[in-house]
Amino acid sequence: MPTTGRGTYDLSNQIQSIVESTGIRTGMCHIFVRHTSASLMLCENADPAVRVDLETFMQRQAPDGDPAFTHTDEGPDDMSAHVRSILTQTDLNVPVSEGRCALGTWQGIYLWEHRIAPHSRSVIITTTGE
Amino acid sequence: MPTTGRGTYDLSNQIQSIVESTGIRTGMCHIFVRHTSASLMLCENADPAVRVDLETFMQRQAPDGDPAFTHTDEGPDDMSAHVRSILTQTDLNVPVSEGRCALGTWQGIYLWEHRIAPHSRSVIITTTGE
Amino acid sequence: MPTTGRGTYDLSNQIQSIVESTGIRTGMCHIFVRHTSASLMLCENADPAVRVDLETFMQRQAPDGDPAFTHTDEGPDDMSAHVRSILTQTDLNVPVSEGRCALGTWQGIYLWEHRIAPHSRSVIITTTGE
Repeated sequence: MPTTGRGTYDLSNQIQSIVESTGIRTGMCHIFVRHTSASLMLCENADPAVRVDLETFMQRQAPDGDPAFTHTDEGPDDMSAHVRSILTQTDLNVPVSEGRCALGTWQGIYLWEHRIAPHSRSVIITTTGE
Repeated sequence: MPTTGRGTYDLSNQIQSIVESTGIRTGMCHIFVRHTSASLMLCENADPAVRVDLETFMQRQAPDGDPAFTHTDEGPDDMSAHVRSILTQTDLNVPVSEGRCALGTWQGIYLWEHRIAPHSRSVIITTTGE
Repeated sequence: MPTTGRGTYDLSNQIQSIVESTGIRTGMCHIFVRHTSASLMLCENADPAVRVDLETFMQRQAPDGDPAFTHTDEGPDDMSAHVRSILTQTDLNVPVSEGRCALGTWQGIYLWEHRIAPHSRSVIITTTGE
């Protein structure tokens, strides 16, 4: 999937559609990002301010251009993106019940692009069950 | 399950009982929290001071009432709880071997309530195997 | 597996060999660390500086000998190791496709030893599929 650069992308509807298309009623949905500078999270899906504040938090924890970092091949957001990735998730498992991901009311499944520039990101969705 | 507010809750015995009741000898046990302000972790289970220190750590990283945060609808511990959740786990997989979760000697499975007030938390346990 | 102390250990080749030996073509590979002071991550595998910078980051976030920590039974790197573990992963699931872990080009599977002294670490690899 394409991203337009740093930020969060709600995958919930796409993943629910994939689960529904498999016809599985009970099982598990696994989501995997094949990158080390983008990640996944299950996050509050109602108020967009939550995801703005998460960016604020990460910018404080792992700022771009941090002089302590030596891996800067791809610019000031290279190493900060790796740090943000390892602090969050590369893979998630969500139970499938009654043919849908059994997310809580306020849970959304988000891809988190940590690079500033747009990227193409590969995400593998695997469903198991019956 | 009910929580009495911020803190850690050892789920290990309950989960071991559920695994045993399924009769599965070899497989996987998946634990999923349907919330974005409570999370899971596998943590040292011997000295309670570890979990006290983890609260100290989180209070430093993501303090309640942080003026940088804009999502404050539910009070000063609202956004800090979301941050603490995304830094830890919403789901865990633990291998099942010889009919029990194959935890290490010092590993306990904990629910971590990040809100100060008591909450009711929904946790889905899924076992697979034979 | 033995570690020589704090640092990262690339498990990718060993895990790929295990997956290949099972003959599974499509499925899932689960990796589980039975410890609370060592963890797992999927990290950039090309430039070793990335993993040096990650140690720098963790030393800043969760320094050894932090006076705020009370759990110091095993020395100044005891509690810092627990913190680093809960900020990263105890278990990972990687999809298996065409008989191999479907890692991205730049993804490696790493054990992260957080204790300074050498340790023996137990890692459970579980493969499912057909």
